Amino acid sequence: MTRSILAAIHSPDDLKRVPAGDIPALSAEIRKVIIEAVGTNGGHLSSNLGVVELTLALHRVFSSPTDAIVWDVGHQCYTHKLVTGRRDLFSSIRKKDGLSGFPKRSESPHDAFDTGHSSTSISAALGLLVARRARGEQGKVVAVIGDGALTGGMALEALSHAGQGANDLVVVLNDNKMSISKNTGALSEYLSRLTMGAPYQRFRQRVDRGIGLIPVFGQPLTRLVYRVKRGVKAILFKDNLFVDLGFEYVGPLNGHNVEELEKVFRDVKALRKPVVVHVQTKKGKGYSLAESDPATFHGIGPFCISDGKVEKFDTTSFTEAFSRAMLEEAAADGRVVAITAAMAKGTGLAAFQHRYPDRFFDVGIAEQHAVTFAGGLAAGGMKPVVAIYSTFMQRAVDQLVHDVALQRLPVVFALDRSGPVPDDGETHQGLYDISLFRPIPGVSILCPASASEVRSMLSWALASDGPVIIRYPKSACPTEQAAFLAPIEAGRGVFAQRDGYDTLLVSTGGAYAEIHEASNLLARAGMPVDSLSLRFAKPFDEAWFLSAVSGYRHLVIVEDGAYSGGIAEWLSSLVARSLPGVSVEAHAFDDVFYPQGSRAEILASAGLSPDHIADSVRRLRAGVSKGSRP
Amino acid sequence: MTRSILAAIHSPDDLKRVPAGDIPALSAEIRKVIIEAVGTNGGHLSSNLGVVELTLALHRVFSSPTDAIVWDVGHQCYTHKLVTGRRDLFSSIRKKDGLSGFPKRSESPHDAFDTGHSSTSISAALGLLVARRARGEQGKVVAVIGDGALTGGMALEALSHAGQGANDLVVVLNDNKMSISKNTGALSEYLSRLTMGAPYQRFRQRVDRGIGLIPVFGQPLTRLVYRVKRGVKAILFKDNLFVDLGFEYVGPLNGHNVEELEKVFRDVKALRKPVVVHVQTKKGKGYSLAESDPATFHGIGPFCISDGKVEKFDTTSFTEAFSRAMLEEAAADGRVVAITAAMAKGTGLAAFQHRYPDRFFDVGIAEQHAVTFAGGLAAGGMKPVVAIYSTFMQRAVDQLVHDVALQRLPVVFALDRSGPVPDDGETHQGLYDISLFRPIPGVSILCPASASEVRSMLSWALASDGPVIIRYPKSACPTEQAAFLAPIEAGRGVFAQRDGYDTLLVSTGGAYAEIHEASNLLARAGMPVDSLSLRFAKPFDEAWFLSAVSGYRHLVIVEDGAYSGGIAEWLSSLVARSLPGVSVEAHAFDDVFYPQGSRAEILASAGLSPDHIADSVRRLRAGVSKGSRP
Repeated sequence: MTRSILAAIHSPDDLKRVPAGDIPALSAEIRKVIIEAVGTNGGHLSSNLGVVELTLALHRVFSSPTDAIVWDVGHQCYTHKLVTGRRDLFSSIRKKDGLSGFPKRSESPHDAFDTGHSSTSISAALGLLVARRARGEQGKVVAVIGDGALTGGMALEALSHAGQGANDLVVVLNDNKMSISKNTGALSEYLSRLTMGAPYQRFRQRVDRGIGLIPVFGQPLTRLVYRVKRGVKAILFKDNLFVDLGFEYVGPLNGHNVEELEKVFRDVKALRKPVVVHVQTKKGKGYSLAESDPATFHGIGPFCISDGKVEKFDTTSFTEAFSRAMLEEAAADGRVVAITAAMAKGTGLAAFQHRYPDRFFDVGIAEQHAVTFAGGLAAGGMKPVVAIYSTFMQRAVDQLVHDVALQRLPVVFALDRSGPVPDDGETHQGLYDISLFRPIPGVSILCPASASEVRSMLSWALASDGPVIIRYPKSACPTEQAAFLAPIEAGRGVFAQRDGYDTLLVSTGGAYAEIHEASNLLARAGMPVDSLSLRFAKPFDEAWFLSAVSGYRHLVIVEDGAYSGGIAEWLSSLVARSLPGVSVEAHAFDDVFYPQGSRAEILASAGLSPDHIADSVRRLRAGVSKGSRP
Repeated sequence: MTRSILAAIHSPDDLKRVPAGDIPALSAEIRKVIIEAVGTNGGHLSSNLGVVELTLALHRVFSSPTDAIVWDVGHQCYTHKLVTGRRDLFSSIRKKDGLSGFPKRSESPHDAFDTGHSSTSISAALGLLVARRARGEQGKVVAVIGDGALTGGMALEALSHAGQGANDLVVVLNDNKMSISKNTGALSEYLSRLTMGAPYQRFRQRVDRGIGLIPVFGQPLTRLVYRVKRGVKAILFKDNLFVDLGFEYVGPLNGHNVEELEKVFRDVKALRKPVVVHVQTKKGKGYSLAESDPATFHGIGPFCISDGKVEKFDTTSFTEAFSRAMLEEAAADGRVVAITAAMAKGTGLAAFQHRYPDRFFDVGIAEQHAVTFAGGLAAGGMKPVVAIYSTFMQRAVDQLVHDVALQRLPVVFALDRSGPVPDDGETHQGLYDISLFRPIPGVSILCPASASEVRSMLSWALASDGPVIIRYPKSACPTEQAAFLAPIEAGRGVFAQRDGYDTLLVSTGGAYAEIHEASNLLARAGMPVDSLSLRFAKPFDEAWFLSAVSGYRHLVIVEDGAYSGGIAEWLSSLVARSLPGVSVEAHAFDDVFYPQGSRAEILASAGLSPDHIADSVRRLRAGVSKGSRP
């Protein structure tokens, strides 16, 4: 084995001492470490392979933590973690109690601000910078933001604000998609390198002249997400936005040439102006499978490094069930259209996009626009389905309230990754959707327990005259039960198992897998139970529910969401009030943030594992229950 | 009295038949009607006076509802309402059961999409347009958006999407602040008028040439909101953004010259391209008091038309209490900084801005950026206070979760206009903040009942090590009680009245005024009661609460927010479970949207008036209570 350069790097200071000639070898070593870790643990591969050199150059020039680096979205921070003292822990990345796959202030002073969702870095960096200046502290603040993240409105809001005198702000635009002709790029690099040292006016003039030579983007791209990104870039690349807003602009630079990057960053470090450094990188760089298919290797589960084959659920996932259901609905009704915010693949809409390109809208990372656009579509008589991750739907709460629910517009929201989300940690948990959306008048919230319910609930939602949320977890669908094929009735659930036992397990659809397993555990232990899946979080047919559960002596309610404001909390008090003879325990996620782990680990840490559920039944039967809440 | 032209206009068709020579008289008549209505009912004056001619020109050229007009924010729709058959109802505007101050699809087919919050119009218009084309329907869709609304990120998200082939989209940029030198404006008008009829290429070239002559904005403006707006406009006015995104751009035009506007709109109507028409208008036009002070007359209560004097609360409002408290805190601690999203005046921060301009940040209509920027400030050691209306905070839920709470950053949120909001209707009610934010781990929610509590809670919040929300209504502070001067203890409330009666009224701070009045009513009726103000919605000291209420026989709990997910719902079940001997009724806002009315009217419609509260006590004492919920 060759000598490890990385092994000797425990801090950015160590990195600064690595001879320039060793950087390519170091980059290769880092790539190997990242590919191995992601191959084993899953994670974000393409983006991390793309920014190895950029990260090294940043840390060789800037002095973290005196200079702060804020990583937008943050899933590209692996090289940053490797060179800031976390190499020895790196194999634990995304594992329970291991390194986070995102920056965490609690993990290192080199992580200046926690990220996870898109488009926040410039706002946060500006805040950090203003605070430093107010407190008389020195140092630059660097925000590293991708071209995709710039389509998010809040990044543009922040740019508008940040150019105004934020002298030590450096925005590194990590551009990994847009292809600009080589010559122009080269010219621009040349100009940038040449002129950064020169006085401001001359620099500006030369860059202007160089940029003016960039040909107008000619070739029409068909996919909207590209068109949107192109639109945003059109603003940027002609230096209008940045320069008009008061930024210096330098680039585009070759993001894989550390020497060149360092040169520019050194100039930038000396400059007393807000600067945008536009860097072009290649997603998946150095791993040919990822280079040729960066989308697949964007966020990925464990995979085989030699052939890139990914471990998959044995059975259909909820995402796949939704994907198929959408194709069937679209075939049956030409008014069905699909909208996503840069998550065509993750939400399972890629098949719809392929089959019905004219009825598919990827609006880029722009959840707010996605929802209000859907509101307009519905007002115009279409049947829009917005597919979005639960955690990202937090971005469009007002749009759901104000532009959809207030007008009772029939927009369907497919909230993937509801409930506990494996491996990504606190920032990606889908635990709040029921609590956030249940108070909004007129919004239905459905929770399928199986693939067939995804299908029937989507049909029900599309036939509804108001907004409907369908929420489901990132997991395999549990085995189908005959009960799940029963028609959807507003506000009512179904008994998955009903054999007249004295104990009933009740759950939201996303927690059905766990109560099913718990009932198996209990049956094996000689304590068989019945089980009921609550298809609806809202509307809720209280009379039906009370009648359905009134014959039982013990009730365990499990919700795969936050207890506070959820339905478990509410149902347990309904039962306590209305059926005083029934003993009840309700379980849901406690009022804390849940860090990364597998689905099973997160559920276990919240007291929601099948074992915990079985224990709850034992306590109730033994008369030693301490009541609800974890 | 002169002949009324307006009286003969019952539809846009009637308006089209008005001779051009009568338009100035019609405009004057409309202004008179608007000033009288707003003087009597309160409302948005400056913005409506600014768009009289623009609205007339739009309706004289386009054919609503075949052509749809979407009004961004919507508070400028008064002329639109007057010429679309709602003149006879106009004196009822903003009154209970009267015309809404905002567009409402339920009110007229000419209201294409409901608005109320900023920056949504382009998204909604695009949705309407795509739907029309998919359904084979004809007609243009016009979005009328102000320059301020363009600072909102979602407007920029929508623009990025909309330029791509939305051929019949017309974005009218209603620019009422930015001063461009007169000559340039005139030149541009000339070019626009001259060239709209010409073929596309020639048109584009000429406009480009004309725009190129606009001088660079020279004079530095000190207030950030202007700088942000200037930034956004800098993108627009050099035609980069719009043209690069695929829009035609025409303007700036004189927004008070109907003839010229009509000419351009007729050309635009014939054009098969997405178009931006840039129109300059004067806020408050035609009412000199509003022209010289448009901010005061932006959204205003009833006022005297001759001198502009506004009716005011007799006592201190919560907004004023916050305003003063901020000055005191800022004087005591240099780390205290204030952030608002275009609401310096409305939130009471204008005094802070004046006294501490360097510590004040108005980021424009950009709530998302405001919150994450505050997160960065807090991470950098400052003590940021974000003052925002409750309803607008719905725009930044994810930022509160993701960029503040997850990192336990000490950001203080002052949520003005919590609870029922007078006159503005469904879109502006502040009923959801407790439900939305209570499930977020680590967030404290405080509800002051008086001016002194605003002061002490702000101190408490600034000393906290995590995020704190202080929510208070748009109303006068109730008379101070000795109890309210007691120090703040986390999770605990105070007895405003404690005389050992058998009935206790419990309320959130914002509903204290009503329980105080109810207790007076009851005392006069010989049924005196005690009362307790819950200072905290979260954290909540359950043991303290149960001990405090355990001596009572009857409990009435009143919350000035949504019942679903609120604390009244939760406390009533806590009491039912823990104190079975205590009879309890909990009251809060039901699961519907609440239309416009005065504070008292809205409370009455929700069953939360002092009379309702007193009735609740009577029912409990008579043993005929039917339990909680309105």
